[in-house]
Amino acid sequence: MASRGSDDPWDRLRELPLGQKVEITDERGVRWSGTVIPPHELSGDRILTLKLSSGYNVGVRVGPATTYRLHEGAPPRAPARSSPSPSDRRAAGGVELLTTGGTIASRVDYETGGVRPVGDEAEILAFYPELAHAGSVRITPVLDRLSENLTPADWSRLAEKVVEAFGRGATGVVIAHGTDTLGFTAAGLSFLLADLPGPVVLVGAQRSPDRPSSDGPSNLRAAVEVARDRRLGEVVVVMHAGLSDDRFAIHRGTWVRKMHSSRRDAFRSRNGPPLGTFDGRSVELGPSVRPPAAGPARVEGPLDPSAGLLWSYPGLSAERAATFVDGLRGVVLAGTGLGHVAHDHLGWIRSATDRGVVVAMTTQCLEGTVDPYVYATGRELLRSGVTFLDDLLPETAYAKLLWALGRGRDPAEVRTLLLRDRAGEFRRRRGLEDPP
Amino acid sequence: MASRGSDDPWDRLRELPLGQKVEITDERGVRWSGTVIPPHELSGDRILTLKLSSGYNVGVRVGPATTYRLHEGAPPRAPARSSPSPSDRRAAGGVELLTTGGTIASRVDYETGGVRPVGDEAEILAFYPELAHAGSVRITPVLDRLSENLTPADWSRLAEKVVEAFGRGATGVVIAHGTDTLGFTAAGLSFLLADLPGPVVLVGAQRSPDRPSSDGPSNLRAAVEVARDRRLGEVVVVMHAGLSDDRFAIHRGTWVRKMHSSRRDAFRSRNGPPLGTFDGRSVELGPSVRPPAAGPARVEGPLDPSAGLLWSYPGLSAERAATFVDGLRGVVLAGTGLGHVAHDHLGWIRSATDRGVVVAMTTQCLEGTVDPYVYATGRELLRSGVTFLDDLLPETAYAKLLWALGRGRDPAEVRTLLLRDRAGEFRRRRGLEDPP
Repeated sequence: MASRGSDDPWDRLRELPLGQKVEITDERGVRWSGTVIPPHELSGDRILTLKLSSGYNVGVRVGPATTYRLHEGAPPRAPARSSPSPSDRRAAGGVELLTTGGTIASRVDYETGGVRPVGDEAEILAFYPELAHAGSVRITPVLDRLSENLTPADWSRLAEKVVEAFGRGATGVVIAHGTDTLGFTAAGLSFLLADLPGPVVLVGAQRSPDRPSSDGPSNLRAAVEVARDRRLGEVVVVMHAGLSDDRFAIHRGTWVRKMHSSRRDAFRSRNGPPLGTFDGRSVELGPSVRPPAAGPARVEGPLDPSAGLLWSYPGLSAERAATFVDGLRGVVLAGTGLGHVAHDHLGWIRSATDRGVVVAMTTQCLEGTVDPYVYATGRELLRSGVTFLDDLLPETAYAKLLWALGRGRDPAEVRTLLLRDRAGEFRRRRGLEDPP
Repeated sequence: MASRGSDDPWDRLRELPLGQKVEITDERGVRWSGTVIPPHELSGDRILTLKLSSGYNVGVRVGPATTYRLHEGAPPRAPARSSPSPSDRRAAGGVELLTTGGTIASRVDYETGGVRPVGDEAEILAFYPELAHAGSVRITPVLDRLSENLTPADWSRLAEKVVEAFGRGATGVVIAHGTDTLGFTAAGLSFLLADLPGPVVLVGAQRSPDRPSSDGPSNLRAAVEVARDRRLGEVVVVMHAGLSDDRFAIHRGTWVRKMHSSRRDAFRSRNGPPLGTFDGRSVELGPSVRPPAAGPARVEGPLDPSAGLLWSYPGLSAERAATFVDGLRGVVLAGTGLGHVAHDHLGWIRSATDRGVVVAMTTQCLEGTVDPYVYATGRELLRSGVTFLDDLLPETAYAKLLWALGRGRDPAEVRTLLLRDRAGEFRRRRGLEDPP
């Protein structure tokens, strides 16, 4: 379609469908070529918002002298502003995308300068037009929150939605999730879900998709590819692995932690390499990958939320720690070194375990195992009834404790569940590592 | 001295001074060559304990047929079992070693199988005979505890001892310290000490010195060398930097964290490389090193212990967090991502800051900065009176808060002190980093 200089071009441009490719020359003569995405909330009148091929977004002011060319034909499978029925994009055996909010499905709110989640399916497709081309990706909005506001109850809800997706015939599930607590949710799902017939891939973004150089599109593309892999039957996290655009790590859900507040390669597996990698073309998997089960996928819950996670530090009084644990059925301590707390904490710990509270020990170092047999402190903690959880991350141990408290009938059974491998979460049992 | 086969050799061997070099052939004809170190507690009678040149220790049973050769002469400057007066080993301008207990000055307790600290100067010299040869190293025992039992009050005591050491003419101070909370103490001393005329070097060991392949001797040697460097006027941590025997990192005291429960290269600087390195021969320092002050060294205290450190996690209730903070003048939160907590925590936070409690935010990612301007959550926290501490480690922020509470007359002044650089602790202020 040729440009039309005589009528007001805004009359036509404001009506373009999301995903339409357009080339536009603004009032100053600058030419822009990109795809129509939703306008920012405070974009004001006569601003057309484009995603450029560079990844940058730009708001182009449309004046009377603005000219434009539309790329021929309707955008292939592009979403309309009114969302098509989800079943339109569903194919049996495909990947299902569950959205929860978070940066990967957020946009800049120009009123506050902050970023707010978007839950609407059409907007998500507009930000990620490649999903419409990826073939058989069904989108199911589940939550609409930044991940710092998610709770263990949301993990259970997500687990149910994963089971439903596999029940509908999905061969893999992708969960778009805020990065803040993505590691916690990944661990929670790892313990909740059983008999997975395919991958459950959590993915996030460190930059919202309406921002220049968002990592959302590339992460999501990688996650969908990993979710298609037929060799994987477990919960993983797929995110950028470095500064290269086409290197992604596949982290086991129980090994991974957000280790940087803003870098796109923030997620790291602890105590060893990730489970696998994706280089933009092929998925490489390490030897310890858990293969798909025959299914059907099940939720083995419930989670019992009456547990806590407490990091120790010099100056933490025994009274404050005891008060923190008050009313809980279990607590994970992130102790120092091999799993230590100050000697004067032994009293409340003994008192807690005596009344059936499960006290589990991890290390705030994050790497290495706890070991109660090296120092007197460890032996005293062991005698006080503390359960040492080897190399589990504090977050993973906390998620596992919620799960074990929900399943175990008494403290002894809870401890047995804690110490038994459930989802490949133990990498190194104590005594099996310790390089010089 | 030739071996004497006729008398009972134990009569002579049991009286050997620590540090004496001896070659001994046991009843089975096996020959051992090493240095006399203190016997293990349960070694039993007629066992001579030697440190071999390989680093291994061995207990040799001395029977009537045992033969031995003593190396000629008394061990040069070796300690006797009765400790000589400290001033014997003091030289003006030398390095002073303060000991606090911890693995670096511990031994295996064969009754419990655990490791217990040793505080006796002669024993320390026996484990580290090279100290006697290092020239002008004075040893001052200060504490005798595993570091998980140290408190901020101990940091203040150590700071006073550092000032005393410089007052006696030391040009550098080494502090042998347990590794569990070494990072906390290093941060605390960084804020407490001012006008340092030379380096204050904290050092630890991940294996006790009576064990094979202890990292104590090599770490201590490196620490003494760094403490001799005349270009350094700040608190640093010196520990192995990798698996190579002669690579040591010099970490700024406010940047460093124990990141592995057992590896000898457990200590890592966050948000960038360490301050410098030592390769066994020379000290290399980066550009941001703080040079010595004219002195005299001073303690700028006191610390106010009425502060806490709380890590947030999904499921932490606002009530539990509020109760944890109850009675404190300040708290450091280790939030998720850019410094977030769940929305329902805003109430107690606002209430706390309204009554003058200082609430400071750091990131549990450990790397990267917090930033309240990206997400709605951050802006709401800012409006609730939270102080965002850029890229400070949670531990460092906690140590700084204890110090700022002790120095600031009101919450506003405490916040000003928190945000002002004190010891080079800020590496990246928000907005100055964010690689793609």
